[in-house]
Amino acid sequence: MGPRDADPTLATLIEYGHGAEAFQETHFTSLTDGEDYQPRHPLLWLNLHGLANIDLLKVVGRRFGLHPLVLEDILNTEQRPKVEVFNGYVFICLRLVSVNEQGEICSEHVSIVLGRNYVLTFQEQPSGTFNQIREGLKSSQSQLRRFGSDYLVYTLLDKLVDRYFLVLEALSERCEDLDDAISSGPNPAQLQEIQALRRTMQYVKRGLWPLREVMNTLQRDEADFFRDETQLYLRDVYDHVVQMIESGEALRDLVNSLQDNYMSLQSNRMNIEMRRLTVLTTIFMPLTLIAGIYGMNFEVMPELHWRWGYFAVLGGMAVIGLSLTLYFRAKRWF
Amino acid sequence: MGPRDADPTLATLIEYGHGAEAFQETHFTSLTDGEDYQPRHPLLWLNLHGLANIDLLKVVGRRFGLHPLVLEDILNTEQRPKVEVFNGYVFICLRLVSVNEQGEICSEHVSIVLGRNYVLTFQEQPSGTFNQIREGLKSSQSQLRRFGSDYLVYTLLDKLVDRYFLVLEALSERCEDLDDAISSGPNPAQLQEIQALRRTMQYVKRGLWPLREVMNTLQRDEADFFRDETQLYLRDVYDHVVQMIESGEALRDLVNSLQDNYMSLQSNRMNIEMRRLTVLTTIFMPLTLIAGIYGMNFEVMPELHWRWGYFAVLGGMAVIGLSLTLYFRAKRWF
Amino acid sequence: MGPRDADPTLATLIEYGHGAEAFQETHFTSLTDGEDYQPRHPLLWLNLHGLANIDLLKVVGRRFGLHPLVLEDILNTEQRPKVEVFNGYVFICLRLVSVNEQGEICSEHVSIVLGRNYVLTFQEQPSGTFNQIREGLKSSQSQLRRFGSDYLVYTLLDKLVDRYFLVLEALSERCEDLDDAISSGPNPAQLQEIQALRRTMQYVKRGLWPLREVMNTLQRDEADFFRDETQLYLRDVYDHVVQMIESGEALRDLVNSLQDNYMSLQSNRMNIEMRRLTVLTTIFMPLTLIAGIYGMNFEVMPELHWRWGYFAVLGGMAVIGLSLTLYFRAKRWF
Amino acid sequence: MGPRDADPTLATLIEYGHGAEAFQETHFTSLTDGEDYQPRHPLLWLNLHGLANIDLLKVVGRRFGLHPLVLEDILNTEQRPKVEVFNGYVFICLRLVSVNEQGEICSEHVSIVLGRNYVLTFQEQPSGTFNQIREGLKSSQSQLRRFGSDYLVYTLLDKLVDRYFLVLEALSERCEDLDDAISSGPNPAQLQEIQALRRTMQYVKRGLWPLREVMNTLQRDEADFFRDETQLYLRDVYDHVVQMIESGEALRDLVNSLQDNYMSLQSNRMNIEMRRLTVLTTIFMPLTLIAGIYGMNFEVMPELHWRWGYFAVLGGMAVIGLSLTLYFRAKRWF
Amino acid sequence: MGPRDADPTLATLIEYGHGAEAFQETHFTSLTDGEDYQPRHPLLWLNLHGLANIDLLKVVGRRFGLHPLVLEDILNTEQRPKVEVFNGYVFICLRLVSVNEQGEICSEHVSIVLGRNYVLTFQEQPSGTFNQIREGLKSSQSQLRRFGSDYLVYTLLDKLVDRYFLVLEALSERCEDLDDAISSGPNPAQLQEIQALRRTMQYVKRGLWPLREVMNTLQRDEADFFRDETQLYLRDVYDHVVQMIESGEALRDLVNSLQDNYMSLQSNRMNIEMRRLTVLTTIFMPLTLIAGIYGMNFEVMPELHWRWGYFAVLGGMAVIGLSLTLYFRAKRWF
Repeated sequence: MGPRDADPTLATLIEYGHGAEAFQETHFTSLTDGEDYQPRHPLLWLNLHGLANIDLLKVVGRRFGLHPLVLEDILNTEQRPKVEVFNGYVFICLRLVSVNEQGEICSEHVSIVLGRNYVLTFQEQPSGTFNQIREGLKSSQSQLRRFGSDYLVYTLLDKLVDRYFLVLEALSERCEDLDDAISSGPNPAQLQEIQALRRTMQYVKRGLWPLREVMNTLQRDEADFFRDETQLYLRDVYDHVVQMIESGEALRDLVNSLQDNYMSLQSNRMNIEMRRLTVLTTIFMPLTLIAGIYGMNFEVMPELHWRWGYFAVLGGMAVIGLSLTLYFRAKRWF
Repeated sequence: MGPRDADPTLATLIEYGHGAEAFQETHFTSLTDGEDYQPRHPLLWLNLHGLANIDLLKVVGRRFGLHPLVLEDILNTEQRPKVEVFNGYVFICLRLVSVNEQGEICSEHVSIVLGRNYVLTFQEQPSGTFNQIREGLKSSQSQLRRFGSDYLVYTLLDKLVDRYFLVLEALSERCEDLDDAISSGPNPAQLQEIQALRRTMQYVKRGLWPLREVMNTLQRDEADFFRDETQLYLRDVYDHVVQMIESGEALRDLVNSLQDNYMSLQSNRMNIEMRRLTVLTTIFMPLTLIAGIYGMNFEVMPELHWRWGYFAVLGGMAVIGLSLTLYFRAKRWF
Repeated sequence: MGPRDADPTLATLIEYGHGAEAFQETHFTSLTDGEDYQPRHPLLWLNLHGLANIDLLKVVGRRFGLHPLVLEDILNTEQRPKVEVFNGYVFICLRLVSVNEQGEICSEHVSIVLGRNYVLTFQEQPSGTFNQIREGLKSSQSQLRRFGSDYLVYTLLDKLVDRYFLVLEALSERCEDLDDAISSGPNPAQLQEIQALRRTMQYVKRGLWPLREVMNTLQRDEADFFRDETQLYLRDVYDHVVQMIESGEALRDLVNSLQDNYMSLQSNRMNIEMRRLTVLTTIFMPLTLIAGIYGMNFEVMPELHWRWGYFAVLGGMAVIGLSLTLYFRAKRWF
Repeated sequence: MGPRDADPTLATLIEYGHGAEAFQETHFTSLTDGEDYQPRHPLLWLNLHGLANIDLLKVVGRRFGLHPLVLEDILNTEQRPKVEVFNGYVFICLRLVSVNEQGEICSEHVSIVLGRNYVLTFQEQPSGTFNQIREGLKSSQSQLRRFGSDYLVYTLLDKLVDRYFLVLEALSERCEDLDDAISSGPNPAQLQEIQALRRTMQYVKRGLWPLREVMNTLQRDEADFFRDETQLYLRDVYDHVVQMIESGEALRDLVNSLQDNYMSLQSNRMNIEMRRLTVLTTIFMPLTLIAGIYGMNFEVMPELHWRWGYFAVLGGMAVIGLSLTLYFRAKRWF
Repeated sequence: MGPRDADPTLATLIEYGHGAEAFQETHFTSLTDGEDYQPRHPLLWLNLHGLANIDLLKVVGRRFGLHPLVLEDILNTEQRPKVEVFNGYVFICLRLVSVNEQGEICSEHVSIVLGRNYVLTFQEQPSGTFNQIREGLKSSQSQLRRFGSDYLVYTLLDKLVDRYFLVLEALSERCEDLDDAISSGPNPAQLQEIQALRRTMQYVKRGLWPLREVMNTLQRDEADFFRDETQLYLRDVYDHVVQMIESGEALRDLVNSLQDNYMSLQSNRMNIEMRRLTVLTTIFMPLTLIAGIYGMNFEVMPELHWRWGYFAVLGGMAVIGLSLTLYFRAKRWF
């Protein structure tokens, strides 16, 4: 509960309208700058990086009339994805997932507030996720400029949701690598890896599953924040979410079957080991018995006095040993 | 995202009406041909093979007023089956599955657009799947000619859905072969096969499960694209989909029970191996002990001086060995 | 798709009304007979055995105005149980299950068409399932005569559904026999039997589960084919179906626990085997070592020259062997 | 189907009203007595013990206008719990469970019919379950007397439902005893016990689960048999049922985890056994080899002629044996 | 059923209003005090610690017009969480969970009654859970004073629900500790711990799962006990409950995977043990055979007379033993 890191908060305000020149980007570094600022274009997008500057959040909250519970949810980096409709604005909570350079999956809390003609976005860290969208807004030809704030929110959601495709792909690859590794020889480190995969799946699931509900609520859109035109695009995002949830479920089944596979291969190996021991015992026991017999000290043991007795016995042993070996080889027992 | 292979796109336009002569088939090879073309019969069916020619798609999209998101979904070969109702047309996404010569299951992305008096179909490759329907249209007596575009779409859906019957049958057969193989002797290659079956099942599932929802949406048909007459036929396709989903679930249970069976048989074998080792040890250990005893060097060991001592001991050993062997045989221990 | 066997099709027409004499049974052997036939009583029941005579089916279809899809479903012996309401009649598909003399469960496709004053039944084979109902109709006092065609359909459904009780009972018995057999000693043949039971359960499930939906649809009865009076009876059949589905689920849990049980008992046996081997080794290894020690050829080994050395060692061996044996017996290790 | 035992049927009629004296209890022993009987108080409760006297049932059925299907359900001792609303009365089927002296769980079929001013109850056997309620009715101060027949039915339901608490508690205790027994040493008899627990759970489940639906239907009470006042009490019973179903589910999870536990402990023991064998082999094999080496008959074996050779070897053996033993002890391997 | 411990019951009455001075706290020690008491401020909060004084409960019940079933539920310390709307008040049952000093999870039954301008709370024991809220009420600036009784109930619910976060965190930690312990070496005590975790999870689940329904019912708030303002806060509590249920489910999956992991690691160890035995047998068996061969008593055994025979054999043995050891080491078999 509360910001996880303390980057200096930096607010970026983008004002835009339908006209070719109707675009302006302002960077705020002090609270007082922002409080007095009067925008000149009809549509606003205010982006805040870092959540440590609680005073700034409060100023923004007051200016846009946000409910205290909204501010609380913006600050709660463990908040589950959700949509809440307030009087005059919609509040959307999401998780932005990404695969870092070490191949680990990490996630970040992102909040979006959509008002009648403004969009507020709150990120934990200054990641460059929205840069592309900002560039798009600069071009006066782009759909982003022609459509309203609701279309901007769609673009943001689409961006965030598409990130899950990459994450699921990375997980799927790890899963297949692990499957190959297990098939070529199970070892306990793989169990740890299966366990780790399971946890990561759960982590992703917590960000992804609630998105279905989020998109559903947005599509129903009882307070009419999205125009019919944009609704078609939301439906598209919803489809992506459903498709990814299905992939996630399939992946989960796969991970479960990995554990089963591990156990089966373990048990297989055990069988092979057992058989090897049986084969060894079967070959050596009769030979040892024979040696033991001719090591007995009976007075009358005619074979002991035969000239070729010793060699005959050695030969016999060799024949028994070899034929047993060949027999087991033929049965492919080792 | 984007076409998987780059066959030269080829558009085929079929125009037809109720009259006996009201049928014409035109093949387009250049974009300009199509743009200027004016159809002479009331009902149209435009079929496009291959998705590489994006310009053509754009021309078609503009001519029939398709939404950009529809064009995107037509090109996205990983798109999940779905129906979307737009203003003036319904857009249907499906997967066409087939079993190739190697017995592998492969699938293809097929899109259908049903307008008030036209049908557009988009396929990844020029497979001959729809040839039979095209032939049917040529006959002025066929139901296809008498009914409208909605009935044509039903025929296409029926064709695509029926393909799943073949695929499920092929899977069911592979499953039973595997079951027999496991019962006659489990080996790790079968585990790989079970895993492969599981993946194929998931692959089929992803194409088949969403069909239930697709057919449901079409049956509700809130925008009234299908006449009551055709609705009865859609209900029939829906039934087939439900039946196939049930078969799929049954198959999945079967695959799961294969793994259980494998494990049980493995453990059974282990038991047999163990018993064999125990039997061997039980037979040879006493004999080796006896040989060891008469190999001791005590001065006073009366048996050693008996005339038939050696033979008696050999005979005793044979008796012990044989009777133990017979005992275990009788208990069917090996 | 299509009839499984080619018995000569035989149509039986029963006409009846409320009056004491209002009953007549006619057997048709040729198509033309039937086409010209004019019934004399208000209520009709036409029963067709065998589905090979497709011409007859077409004649019946034309006469009673059946939709081509209905005829298709009547012929499709793999059709899943369902109800479909058409304009003027209800079409019901069911599976008739039975346990044959070999204790195997087999099933048959039965179709029922209920019109305003007629009932059509279509069976794969001339089984005597409906004979009792036919006899009932002959008696002018029976409820069947007093009530209409809807009550006749209830009686047919009740008959078909009750068959499942017998089948589930037979399965339950097989399941308990198997449980006893496994408990008294697991062997791989039982695994085959578990697998077979599972398949049979799935087979029964496919006929039984959809019945709930069928009965539900009939009870809602939006087209008003059943009178309120008969509705009470349908509710009763619905109850039976629900009860049987619950029994089926319970049976399924039981079959699953059989496999678990098998595995546990296997592993138990393995433990016993292992222990036996350990006991054997523990007893014989020290004795063999002792024999080995006194078989060494050192010049100075005082015990070898003792008068009772040999007997003392033999005695010592016996004491060690016996005491170990008694110790393990006391611990109930073998 | 049909009564399980043939106790002489005994009908007890309790008539009561709001007044202090308005209470009378009559015992019927012959059919004719009952047929002519005219009650003097406004509210009736007729209780029938034993279901063998079918004639009596028919008389009661005729007198209170019960539907033939209701009589059938009253007689069917395997009937699943349910509610059915008929014209003028509600019919409720339940199972009365109890733990007998042997700790076994047994159940009995109980039917209740609630009319506008009468209650009929049908029990398999004359158990004293309702005695307490009968006593309550005698007191003119009791709520039972002040409220109507609907409150009497609530009291009966509450009584029957509360019985499940005892049964679940008994099962929970058996489950915990078994868990302790397994933890202190798994043996196959426990598997039988787990299996038995599972079956009992299913048995209880069949009586308990449908109660949720029963109470739900009664609460909806579309035919208005229960006054608003009594509805609050029904809601309370519903809560109890939900709570017990949750306990049942928890118990079921527990039983499943018992089997897992059994398997894990089995496998643990196997490991211990295995280790013991390995330790034994590791200790004795080198000693036996040494004895074997000095038992060889080479001419030149200097050690054999050393004075203390024998004792040195014996000492060496003891040192090896002891140090290995101590080593394994230190590693807590046996 | 009934209070679990018999602390002397102590009632605390807090009266408050919107004014700065409108706050008063009264402690009741005798029944008569309370009966005559007339409050001076518009809003009341009556808190009762301990449930042993049934007379007090009855007095409170009479004074606030509580239904007998409500009093029963307040006393039933095993009552499942629920909401019930009565005429004039809402009754809410909850479980207050906490982690005690021994790390054990324990829970307590808490009941809340919300009337139009009063709140009653009933606790099993005088825990200090609500002290903070009481302090908050003292401050005339706090939201608690500005809003009505409904907001006070929200604050109580929020407090109780937040406790589950701590409990789930404690469980999650125990789960991870156990996972580490199992990975570093499975032993049966861990099985006991897994079992204990499972039971605790079920215990928590029984308190937490029904909360979703409770919050849902409160949010629907058909009887309008909560103002729109407060509804936003209830929605927030609902979100927390959903998030915790998801964490609970994830935890449950984790506990299940612990058991799987245990089994896999056990089986792994078994494999290692088995291999060790095989390696030992493979090394010692040939050496013992060689010693046995040269212990035979044949007259003609040339090697025995070779000068360096004995040393050659010893050397050969050493070479065989060492090379086998090195071979197995290289294969990392022990």
